[in-house]
Amino acid sequence: MTASPFTLHNRSSECMARRGEVKTLHGVIQTPIFMPVGTQATVKGVTPANLDELGAQIILANTYHLYIRPGHELIRELGGLHKFMHWDKPILTDSGGFQIFSLRDLAKITEEGAGFRSHHDGSNLFLSPEDAVAVQEALGSDIMMCLDTCIPHPATREETIKGTDLTHRWAKRSRAAQKQTGQLLFGIAQGGMFPDLRAQAIEQLVEVGFDGYAIGGLSVGEPNEKMYEITEQLTPLMPQDYPIYLMGVGTPADLVEGVYRGVDMFDCVMPTRNARNGMLFTSSGRVVIKNAKYTKDPRPVDENCDCYTCRNFSRAYLRHLYMTKEILSSQLNTIHNLHYYVGLMTKMRTAIEEDRFVAFRKEFYEQRHQE
Amino acid sequence: MTASPFTLHNRSSECMARRGEVKTLHGVIQTPIFMPVGTQATVKGVTPANLDELGAQIILANTYHLYIRPGHELIRELGGLHKFMHWDKPILTDSGGFQIFSLRDLAKITEEGAGFRSHHDGSNLFLSPEDAVAVQEALGSDIMMCLDTCIPHPATREETIKGTDLTHRWAKRSRAAQKQTGQLLFGIAQGGMFPDLRAQAIEQLVEVGFDGYAIGGLSVGEPNEKMYEITEQLTPLMPQDYPIYLMGVGTPADLVEGVYRGVDMFDCVMPTRNARNGMLFTSSGRVVIKNAKYTKDPRPVDENCDCYTCRNFSRAYLRHLYMTKEILSSQLNTIHNLHYYVGLMTKMRTAIEEDRFVAFRKEFYEQRHQE
Repeated sequence: MTASPFTLHNRSSECMARRGEVKTLHGVIQTPIFMPVGTQATVKGVTPANLDELGAQIILANTYHLYIRPGHELIRELGGLHKFMHWDKPILTDSGGFQIFSLRDLAKITEEGAGFRSHHDGSNLFLSPEDAVAVQEALGSDIMMCLDTCIPHPATREETIKGTDLTHRWAKRSRAAQKQTGQLLFGIAQGGMFPDLRAQAIEQLVEVGFDGYAIGGLSVGEPNEKMYEITEQLTPLMPQDYPIYLMGVGTPADLVEGVYRGVDMFDCVMPTRNARNGMLFTSSGRVVIKNAKYTKDPRPVDENCDCYTCRNFSRAYLRHLYMTKEILSSQLNTIHNLHYYVGLMTKMRTAIEEDRFVAFRKEFYEQRHQE
Repeated sequence: MTASPFTLHNRSSECMARRGEVKTLHGVIQTPIFMPVGTQATVKGVTPANLDELGAQIILANTYHLYIRPGHELIRELGGLHKFMHWDKPILTDSGGFQIFSLRDLAKITEEGAGFRSHHDGSNLFLSPEDAVAVQEALGSDIMMCLDTCIPHPATREETIKGTDLTHRWAKRSRAAQKQTGQLLFGIAQGGMFPDLRAQAIEQLVEVGFDGYAIGGLSVGEPNEKMYEITEQLTPLMPQDYPIYLMGVGTPADLVEGVYRGVDMFDCVMPTRNARNGMLFTSSGRVVIKNAKYTKDPRPVDENCDCYTCRNFSRAYLRHLYMTKEILSSQLNTIHNLHYYVGLMTKMRTAIEEDRFVAFRKEFYEQRHQE
């Protein structure tokens, strides 16, 4: 059992929100944190220089995608993922499990691992839990995730038990397969919508012992309130001296609710994907930039924002770029949305440090007209 | 007749190459110069900050496109094109003539002006030479171009005379319509592939008197040698105390040949468009980044280049981005290609200052393996 990479700084006196840090090979990240998603070794629409400027501390890359293209061995030969994509801060790689399960009929899960057909060229591929660790070791990410099975929503108790138990056996094999590279390995707790199965999954993971613990299989179509409820039940059961990661979440409100319930780490494609679709996040709600009311609007997207986009461009210009399908539309919108997400986490960290997180949460909702 | 905005610094002792500057409302540009093309008020794939960093001094925007979307009145209301797109250095706007003529069957040219149907929504629009000036005045560009007629290639002498004469009459009307805004107005000499008609077109433009003179209707499908030949015949006939602009040109070799023959200004979509198609310019020739030989190539695109792309990313990574159709592919390739074009012009300016342009031209061809 290795020492925990997590150091707790502060805990709210009124809720589960906590302020800490996670130590990795490429530096320390301040939590709670949001990780922009760079599926194919690039966060869509921004350069590493942009990410630096907007204050991103860590990004996520997808094992499944990089395994298929350009291949983990190629990335290893070229000096690892950090050098490949010119990002020298921490990187978390997911396990590929979620992507493989998204293939549905193209995936075949056995005790041994996941057989699947490449979304790229249809070739037959296979990934065992040991393979997933080896691939992530080749990539050289700072935080690796165990290969897990994703339980569909809705699922019967029977199905949920089956998937959760298999995830547990795979987690054990993942930990055993890990080489001593200094990379962290997080376990993923499944358990679907059943609190007792969730609790059991956590217990079993802790028995194995990981460097961090993730809640998987949420934000898969269940109502928001259900996600909050399950998170709230689980975080107190998770080892408090290790980082807690809520995977694939979420909206700004989801981040606030997650932090409120004790989550340290988040990732989601929402800020980047929505940016490309012309949906911008602001402190007062969402802006759909194609709306006609912005045609002549000289104001920045968010008057309270100091990102490159808001400092220099009007809503009218951003609308023009969106309507004319210009690349710069994706670039400027992505810079803004990521800046908003990163800034929201910074504000939450400060609020926890000053022990006013509950007041912060209240203000967060009051400021928003819509969403 | 206003004073010329052009100041000559040096002239080669061996050829027509010359080093000078053009004074505009938004500052002075050093010539010979290449202008990146920002058709819809954005240079595709780069931010204004990128353009600044790579040393662009002036960009081109398209009157036709901005007239259609978002409309020149909207841009005027929002403070002009510079403010709209956040670019405070000089902007040249073309007249829209070339785009309208590209519509072919959708355009109807009369003495009065150009009737055409919008490529965007099919609406019937009309632009007279006076309208084109008024639109460019609303945009607030530093250098405006007269509305001209483009002569198809190939064209008979008869057709060429007709188009050239109409362009001349429109040029007169353009100059007469111009308000005293301090914006420069350039005339465009047509004349197709007929040297005597070209010479006559220039003579007629000079009679009217413009702030600069452009050679239009080249790079329209004629052989390269023909373009060089016509340029070589024309530049000595053009007023030497005014800027000379070869429109829509070209490849790196075209720029070298243009400068050699006395051209001061160039614009072309080639560096930006080719970037998006994965074709990169280097000092030793062209790199088609999708080629399998770059799969594991750890070298930068151009080992002699210090652009953001070459400083930080390998050919292998750029190939990966291209193959996976990532936005960053267009971004990084565009930064590189524009940096190459801008750098090539800087080298040419220095070579003229040091009166070694002919030697520079020789070395330029020697360095290239391919292209």
